[in-house]
Amino acid sequence: MSPKITTELLKQLRQVMKSPKYVQEPVQAYIVPSGDAHQSEYIAPCDCRRAFISGFDGSAGTAIVTEQHAAMWTDGRYFLQAAHQMDNNWTLMKMGLKDTPTQEDWLVSVLPEGSKVGVDPFIIPADQWKRMSKALRSAGHDLVPVKENLIDTIWTDCPQRPCKPLITLDLSYTGVSWRDKIVALRSKMAERKVLWFVVTALDEVAWLFNLRGSDVEYNPVFFAYAVIGMNTIRLFIDGDRMMDPAVREHLQLDCTLEPEFKIQVMPYGSIVSELQAVGAGLSAKEKVWLSDKASYALTEAIPKAYRYLTPYTPICIAKAVKNASETEGMRRAHIKDAVALCELFNWLEKEVPKGTVTEIIAADKAEEFRSQQKDFVELSFATISSTGPNGAIIHYKPVPETNRTLSVNEIYLLDSGAQYKDGTTDVTRTMHFGTPSAYEKECFTYVLKGHIAVSAAIFPNGTKGHLLDSFARSALWDCGLDYLHGTGHGVGSFLNVHEGPCGISYKTFADEPLEAGMIVSDEPGYYEDGSFGVRIENVVLVIPAETKYNFKNRGSLTFEPLTLVPIQRKMIDVNLLTQKECNWVNDYHQKCREVIGAELERQGRHEALQWLIRETEPVIRVQ
Amino acid sequence: MSPKITTELLKQLRQVMKSPKYVQEPVQAYIVPSGDAHQSEYIAPCDCRRAFISGFDGSAGTAIVTEQHAAMWTDGRYFLQAAHQMDNNWTLMKMGLKDTPTQEDWLVSVLPEGSKVGVDPFIIPADQWKRMSKALRSAGHDLVPVKENLIDTIWTDCPQRPCKPLITLDLSYTGVSWRDKIVALRSKMAERKVLWFVVTALDEVAWLFNLRGSDVEYNPVFFAYAVIGMNTIRLFIDGDRMMDPAVREHLQLDCTLEPEFKIQVMPYGSIVSELQAVGAGLSAKEKVWLSDKASYALTEAIPKAYRYLTPYTPICIAKAVKNASETEGMRRAHIKDAVALCELFNWLEKEVPKGTVTEIIAADKAEEFRSQQKDFVELSFATISSTGPNGAIIHYKPVPETNRTLSVNEIYLLDSGAQYKDGTTDVTRTMHFGTPSAYEKECFTYVLKGHIAVSAAIFPNGTKGHLLDSFARSALWDCGLDYLHGTGHGVGSFLNVHEGPCGISYKTFADEPLEAGMIVSDEPGYYEDGSFGVRIENVVLVIPAETKYNFKNRGSLTFEPLTLVPIQRKMIDVNLLTQKECNWVNDYHQKCREVIGAELERQGRHEALQWLIRETEPVIRVQ
Repeated sequence: MSPKITTELLKQLRQVMKSPKYVQEPVQAYIVPSGDAHQSEYIAPCDCRRAFISGFDGSAGTAIVTEQHAAMWTDGRYFLQAAHQMDNNWTLMKMGLKDTPTQEDWLVSVLPEGSKVGVDPFIIPADQWKRMSKALRSAGHDLVPVKENLIDTIWTDCPQRPCKPLITLDLSYTGVSWRDKIVALRSKMAERKVLWFVVTALDEVAWLFNLRGSDVEYNPVFFAYAVIGMNTIRLFIDGDRMMDPAVREHLQLDCTLEPEFKIQVMPYGSIVSELQAVGAGLSAKEKVWLSDKASYALTEAIPKAYRYLTPYTPICIAKAVKNASETEGMRRAHIKDAVALCELFNWLEKEVPKGTVTEIIAADKAEEFRSQQKDFVELSFATISSTGPNGAIIHYKPVPETNRTLSVNEIYLLDSGAQYKDGTTDVTRTMHFGTPSAYEKECFTYVLKGHIAVSAAIFPNGTKGHLLDSFARSALWDCGLDYLHGTGHGVGSFLNVHEGPCGISYKTFADEPLEAGMIVSDEPGYYEDGSFGVRIENVVLVIPAETKYNFKNRGSLTFEPLTLVPIQRKMIDVNLLTQKECNWVNDYHQKCREVIGAELERQGRHEALQWLIRETEPVIRVQ
Repeated sequence: MSPKITTELLKQLRQVMKSPKYVQEPVQAYIVPSGDAHQSEYIAPCDCRRAFISGFDGSAGTAIVTEQHAAMWTDGRYFLQAAHQMDNNWTLMKMGLKDTPTQEDWLVSVLPEGSKVGVDPFIIPADQWKRMSKALRSAGHDLVPVKENLIDTIWTDCPQRPCKPLITLDLSYTGVSWRDKIVALRSKMAERKVLWFVVTALDEVAWLFNLRGSDVEYNPVFFAYAVIGMNTIRLFIDGDRMMDPAVREHLQLDCTLEPEFKIQVMPYGSIVSELQAVGAGLSAKEKVWLSDKASYALTEAIPKAYRYLTPYTPICIAKAVKNASETEGMRRAHIKDAVALCELFNWLEKEVPKGTVTEIIAADKAEEFRSQQKDFVELSFATISSTGPNGAIIHYKPVPETNRTLSVNEIYLLDSGAQYKDGTTDVTRTMHFGTPSAYEKECFTYVLKGHIAVSAAIFPNGTKGHLLDSFARSALWDCGLDYLHGTGHGVGSFLNVHEGPCGISYKTFADEPLEAGMIVSDEPGYYEDGSFGVRIENVVLVIPAETKYNFKNRGSLTFEPLTLVPIQRKMIDVNLLTQKECNWVNDYHQKCREVIGAELERQGRHEALQWLIRETEPVIRVQ
């Protein structure tokens, strides 16, 4: 990919940063975060302002433009991609490396005295505003909210905000009705003595009302806010989506209901004024509950004395613990997903040697096989289909300029997943269609050892996921290898493929303890720049474990893999595994063979079944 | 031990909390932290105010007294001890357990509206003041500084503040002169653009000037502050200690020096007024550097705009990385310490079966053997000499009321250490002088596996110690066992046995990355309440590791044990060890035999040498 030329755009942006039409006073710096007004990770095209101004379109990054400089902060997953996509106007700030300044420190170092730093108050989360504002103030600068988004003023062909139809989910998928979810939420509100709860994250709105949408690619969500009182429910949503009879029935909009379950539908854009009205009606000790990651604009609508801010909302926490219907749905989704991948890998094994399969063709084929499965909705993220050196670009997405042909000489890494109506999948397998080198096998085997160490870990109830991260690295560390990303993230149930509040990362210190029913990914990797990438990812369910002494009745937890796709035996240097690890691989493959084999049989996919049987033969140590 | 009866004392305290003689307005709650004005962990008798008011004398704990309640917060190490030492007036708040409220939340739940909460501003660290003050304010209460310490007003026989002679350390011990330390400090100050640095921690003052004292038991420090300017050095210290010719020469007090190395000696009590004078003389952008753990009283002396606060001071960080002279000193100290313990264990093996050795006698004998070693100064902490159920009290110290006789039927746990002029030691061994049960051996072996997992861990440069904590627990977790304390702490060089900024703990998220030259403890354990305790502790040095791929030149680290005392083979269930772990034990014992054997030989301690040779025979797996 060639970098985006941004000289002209930056010139225009620097002009509007000084224009009285848009700013009360000129701003000497303008911050362009990557989020939208809901702090979503995946965003609609109209919200891709950071990508528009810089060219860098990875999922995480913050741009800051000053009169003289343009700088981009992003993390280890995106160092290579950002460097490729941005032109020389931009400085890449590699987060997580020792010498990289924070945004605040950098601003202080480059700004003239008494500067104003502008940001769109809808895009910046309140906690970031607070930190940034404090740091700037203590250095004599000011963070100021700029009402009109300055990128939008120069983005002449900015697409419209999407407003697509909704999907209703019945009890067989959700396990709990939206009314019962509201009741549970109100009981949490009563516990904390708050009168109002503001739902700002899109997946939280979708989960609460058992609705799904398609306003954002890959994430089945829709643009909306909700404000829940002890006796009122307000849903802020645009378009004629509420005219759909199925939606009206689902939300019981036309029924005579107890007033506390009557949903008032309001325009999306009226959220701030409605919140201001709520705020104005409060008296002492009455509180409004918001996420501390809600936008500064929404947070500011409630006077400070009435705010009750928490890092994770009760919806976020409830949503993370899947109930029996959701867990069963996730199991079904992962079985279907494995069927599609067995078909794909069987197909690749035959086609790759012909030299006709590119990364894009392979990704499309994966989507084709998935779309044949029942209740398939869309992909859960952009397929990472990467061969050889492209595999070392952690969040690579093939485009025509970089599209490489799969061959029998290079490692192929496929990280992909889908949204099914019953669940969300996310799986990475690393394959070789020829003969891997000893070094490639060695690296793969260390990654596998790390994957197993997490997957088979037993830990006491109440343990936070970040305490498990080093288990995934230990085998790599022993040989002086490491990877620059976390080991796992929460996964939604037909919702966002990345969700809080739990994860497995050296960086995540604010994660909530793991509980039975939570679902996370387990995905250590190893990346050799310019050469290859290895990652092995399963989605795993937190389940109770049986231990000899059970932590004095505190209880034990472990993981059960939901992903059931063979791990390529050819890539494993079996003699680097312990007997216990060897048994884990064989037990896992036995389960793949049984569960996925039965489904392949049922679907009449005999060739893929033969492939599965071959790929799940036991591995044996010779020592 | 029987609990301290505190009814009368609490009544008196509640009276002075309302007395206009001591407080401008009555305070509805009074906080008694455990520290002194330097936030020391170990404190002088005159500073043991929390122990005086409550009876609980563990090293960590905060008491809060209100009109109706008296509550004590402490951590897992002290749950049993605190419960034993406090009477029914007190509620024990078990920190780290899910349902335990924070001090702030608890205060808010019990205080009447608009309450005042008092605290001695010299005793509370500024960061705690800030957090507590904010939480109270948002609930409508006020945190107020109470100038006169209210405990002191009712403590009629409070001992005098100690003021003992100083020890000077020459270059052969310290490796770097105090002048060079000042130069290095000033260069760090210049880097951060600060004009002044305030040294508030006692071990930082001692380290900076290459002086030691004995004002606080176990910690070779002395009561003093220092304020370092770019051209001035002020040392705040009381008594006639500066009259000692050795000290005068060491500090070059009587020489004609470059003015920037001339030390001005000032009274200890003048620190606040001197800091206020410094603060008053500052102009815009001039900063004073303080630890954010410095007392609220000192921090407040500098106007907010001029403060530069960091969690760790440059002295704290420099002090943690031991230079070659310090490392060699630590090695020597640990060899001498091991000689003393070989003598002790040989003696115990003979004496315990006679039934005449109590925990106190064993502790005294350990001190006796240590005191025979060259450059012995004192113990580095109160010896934990505990047998049977007392071993489960993590920071137990034998007193006549609890003193138990060692026997061939119970596990004996000895956690002890000493200050030598060349280094500080801290070692725990768990022994059985009869035949341990299978369960005792099983627990011991899991703890040993955890100890080895940390000690042998290889990790990239820049890794923080807390990422290694789970390695120590993994073998215990697999069987449903755990321990409620961190795995390791920094160790000073003839200084405090606990020091920052590094450690190995699930709780330590603000630790600095481990670097070659840092010294920490590795001490996993297992505690069976009412029955026994197991802990295996070595002091280990961070050293560069050799790895196959060396983290792309980022460099690798691992640990080298400085402690060289045999780990009792009788307690090991060898078949629970892997071959690698077995090799570790045998290699470790081989090194003990070589290094400590040579020293025992040199000192003519032939019987202990025979014991050492017996105890370091290889262990062999039979599988």
